[in-house]
Amino acid sequence: MLKIIPLGGLGEIGLNMMVIEYDDVIFIIDAGLMFPEEYMLGIDIVIPAMDYIRENRDKVQAIIITHAHEDHIGALPYLLREIRLPVYGTAFTLGIVRNKLIEFDLNKYIDLNLVNPGETLSIDPFEIEFIRVSHSTVEGVGLAIKTPEGVVVHTGDFRINHDSDKMKNTDISSFARFGEEGVLALMSDSTNVEVEGYTMSEQEVAKNLEDLITVAKGRVIVALFASNVFRIQQLVDIAIRNNRKVVFHGRSMEQIVAVATQLGHIHYPPNTILNIKQISRHKDDEVLIITTGSQGEPMSALVRMASGMHKHINIKKGDNVILSSKYIPGNEKAIANIINKLYRRGADVVYSKIAKIHTSGHAHQEELKLMLNLTKPKYFIPIHGEYRHLVVHARLAEGLGLPRENVIVAEDGKIIAFDKDGGRITGSVHTGRILVDGKGIGDVGRSVLKERRELSEGGLVVVTMIIDEETGVVLYGPELISKGFVFDSATGYLVDDAQCVILEIVEEIEAGFESRVELIRKKLKKALKQYFAFTINRRPLIVPIIIEV
Amino acid sequence: MLKIIPLGGLGEIGLNMMVIEYDDVIFIIDAGLMFPEEYMLGIDIVIPAMDYIRENRDKVQAIIITHAHEDHIGALPYLLREIRLPVYGTAFTLGIVRNKLIEFDLNKYIDLNLVNPGETLSIDPFEIEFIRVSHSTVEGVGLAIKTPEGVVVHTGDFRINHDSDKMKNTDISSFARFGEEGVLALMSDSTNVEVEGYTMSEQEVAKNLEDLITVAKGRVIVALFASNVFRIQQLVDIAIRNNRKVVFHGRSMEQIVAVATQLGHIHYPPNTILNIKQISRHKDDEVLIITTGSQGEPMSALVRMASGMHKHINIKKGDNVILSSKYIPGNEKAIANIINKLYRRGADVVYSKIAKIHTSGHAHQEELKLMLNLTKPKYFIPIHGEYRHLVVHARLAEGLGLPRENVIVAEDGKIIAFDKDGGRITGSVHTGRILVDGKGIGDVGRSVLKERRELSEGGLVVVTMIIDEETGVVLYGPELISKGFVFDSATGYLVDDAQCVILEIVEEIEAGFESRVELIRKKLKKALKQYFAFTINRRPLIVPIIIEV
Repeated sequence: MLKIIPLGGLGEIGLNMMVIEYDDVIFIIDAGLMFPEEYMLGIDIVIPAMDYIRENRDKVQAIIITHAHEDHIGALPYLLREIRLPVYGTAFTLGIVRNKLIEFDLNKYIDLNLVNPGETLSIDPFEIEFIRVSHSTVEGVGLAIKTPEGVVVHTGDFRINHDSDKMKNTDISSFARFGEEGVLALMSDSTNVEVEGYTMSEQEVAKNLEDLITVAKGRVIVALFASNVFRIQQLVDIAIRNNRKVVFHGRSMEQIVAVATQLGHIHYPPNTILNIKQISRHKDDEVLIITTGSQGEPMSALVRMASGMHKHINIKKGDNVILSSKYIPGNEKAIANIINKLYRRGADVVYSKIAKIHTSGHAHQEELKLMLNLTKPKYFIPIHGEYRHLVVHARLAEGLGLPRENVIVAEDGKIIAFDKDGGRITGSVHTGRILVDGKGIGDVGRSVLKERRELSEGGLVVVTMIIDEETGVVLYGPELISKGFVFDSATGYLVDDAQCVILEIVEEIEAGFESRVELIRKKLKKALKQYFAFTINRRPLIVPIIIEV
Repeated sequence: MLKIIPLGGLGEIGLNMMVIEYDDVIFIIDAGLMFPEEYMLGIDIVIPAMDYIRENRDKVQAIIITHAHEDHIGALPYLLREIRLPVYGTAFTLGIVRNKLIEFDLNKYIDLNLVNPGETLSIDPFEIEFIRVSHSTVEGVGLAIKTPEGVVVHTGDFRINHDSDKMKNTDISSFARFGEEGVLALMSDSTNVEVEGYTMSEQEVAKNLEDLITVAKGRVIVALFASNVFRIQQLVDIAIRNNRKVVFHGRSMEQIVAVATQLGHIHYPPNTILNIKQISRHKDDEVLIITTGSQGEPMSALVRMASGMHKHINIKKGDNVILSSKYIPGNEKAIANIINKLYRRGADVVYSKIAKIHTSGHAHQEELKLMLNLTKPKYFIPIHGEYRHLVVHARLAEGLGLPRENVIVAEDGKIIAFDKDGGRITGSVHTGRILVDGKGIGDVGRSVLKERRELSEGGLVVVTMIIDEETGVVLYGPELISKGFVFDSATGYLVDDAQCVILEIVEEIEAGFESRVELIRKKLKKALKQYFAFTINRRPLIVPIIIEV
């Protein structure tokens, strides 16, 4: 029996990870992270719970990475730290993975194995063909997985692009070939299923960027995702045609450009590239800076430039700043703030809301229909999306004629099984989201997050008191200290009154009563809560520290 | 000399408030709130700093409200609590203001004065004509302010709509009339200046809603802003045509519908409206529920329905939920979550990303150009927007031929003066954003917010210790208590080790040293910070409570 078990990515954007299992053989597709949701205060990243892999570690043969984005590779070090597996991917993907493993001190222990698009990897009883797909980074692949039950196609993250350079295009012929031969099930990227029509082409984006850069008089600074390698090359070409030198700036930009240059994705004649320190030796209209920070990330190069905190570049009147990127949900305010800052410094700012200078790496509705009609699957499983994306994608497939019972809307942890009785959900395995905070993995749970939320909204008040155990007399305190609350000259009376409230409670409870301190603590918390709610309508966390001596 | 002084709304979306001054006469336009930005942890609302009004309270004659949205009336009670001013507005606006004043116990003290669109209000030396504008609530107005220096036009929040019912349309003839007579300065709504083309018409929205509701088989639940009165009436009409009874649900929905019904904006034949308790007596396809919660607000009716926490309505398979609303920036995740929840419960969900069932109340680029060309102002001042909106709107006006020196991009607090030497910024007054947290107004500042942020990201650790003043011996503790941090079985060793770190510090410092406790406190904070950063890479706030006895 063939089992497909998503551990992440079906029920959220990001966290992509999937188990493919037949009898006693398992391989994994992707191990991605998710950036924390707003309520996950203080959390750095989120990774999928991998209990199922741990419990079946003897069966697991390999992990295949479809492309080099964090939502597909970010959890990899956490997996490989526990279970040393061979990793399979394309050259660029492996280059980025290698850097990540070096960061985690894991590179010595892991085999990275190159598979080119068009080539087939054998993990008995599976044969897995890598199929080139176009996406917002280079060398992405989808997978055609030959299994004893039939061929399963996994699109990876994809769009359909029509460039004269076929290396930039999704290999629709291969998808069509498998469609002709018969596909048991298609798993397809649902990220943009809510968007009508087709993705705008990268050529149009490049043309619009060139129009802007050609007429620019001052410096040009373009911010985009470092992994958007094809677009970076377009920018290099545009710079050369406009007699501008190029600066690659920002840590991840420099890292990724290094890998991409080594593999020939980025190329240029000698004397094209400047170091950022050399920039002052050139006229403003001879420079094009390619940088990170398009999402308004607090410490990114662009934010530092816009805040006057950058060592080499401060934004000034005449600068042309282009944000060639999307608005990732949750980042809207940060991006708006950086644009406002840039304008205030006198820069001309162009961003994707007011110009067509970005296109998505994820297929829109018409491309998703094309994928369905190319592969002609018997079963369809929407992947990569929140629940609503999966449902909308399912409806789209049904609209093309797939019978509803052959469309499987599954979420993380579901076991999707295929055998002679067809495909269906047969059960589920444990999965979930593991919160990574600093070096702690999974030690921050609901209760800690709840405390952080309470603290963030109301701050806290610590009440310290020393009580004589025998007489019950208060020897010290009650002393009140607050953080993130408010005690100042204007509210000083609050402290005095709160102290009275506390002392009344202490007096009320007889000395010698066995669990007196416990009772004081409880009553004090309740009374102060009520007191602050009534007087200033706030709800600080109350931490009573009562010591009996 | 005529002075125009924005106190809010020029530099942010919301917070709209403006002073119009000539010699010793001032009147105010709007007094709006802003909802807190993400970093303003625990803050309820934000209002403009009103120092300038306070300092000139003898000059201030009146406040005019352009329409009934919170970003134009939300700060009104805070102003009127300090300064009792007559309020001028249209009937619906005053109805909503009245409810607000009742909430704040102010209604007895304030005169509310009706001015209908087309009528003129005299505040010597000003004559202010109210001009009907179309917006996402009813009875919005723009203002034509006749001043000794010339006519200043303030659009309020507007769009251009072309309905057969002229009550729903912006009175473009009046704007044109002032344009013909000569307009000194136009102040126009910049909210949607980034969006090309025209706003979709409300008729098209109504048609699309009717298409959805006509084919719906189960219950229909439409969530939208309660203030969107015209659309609510459209929904009532659609319900009647489809033999459905209407339930108005949610506190603000019921309140606003009551005001709108009294004024004739909402009307229906007898037996159209159901109480929510009667709903079970009707078949599913005989009911249309109009409710709040379109932004995924945590305690709103829709969220409770989707979470199974509602007393009368729980979402079930066959329900049709329509979110006829925009995504307010910052609410994207909450809205996405509610849609996912609704789908999980088996409802059909339609929202503005996948269907044309919402249109904005703010003019798009072509409508903004129309306003500029109708009023033909000598000077142009973009209002209502973040800095980037104001800049983009300024460029738009320049693109229509306005000389750059006649386009004034001002921010909150700037004094825009007009006299025989023309219009220009002559200085600035104090303004700012006042944070309201519970009953506290302006007592939460940067330092409290910073503490809240630190607490939210890393939690805190309280260290309690009692030390003998003379011998320097530790009598109690060090005891560690954490909130929003993490101490559990897995990390118990952290407590032990941290205690050792603390005791070492205490031993290091000689007893009898005068500021010993202060020094211990300082060193302890630093050492624990380093210790937690090194061991688990986290940064809790450290609160040392050291008591000498």
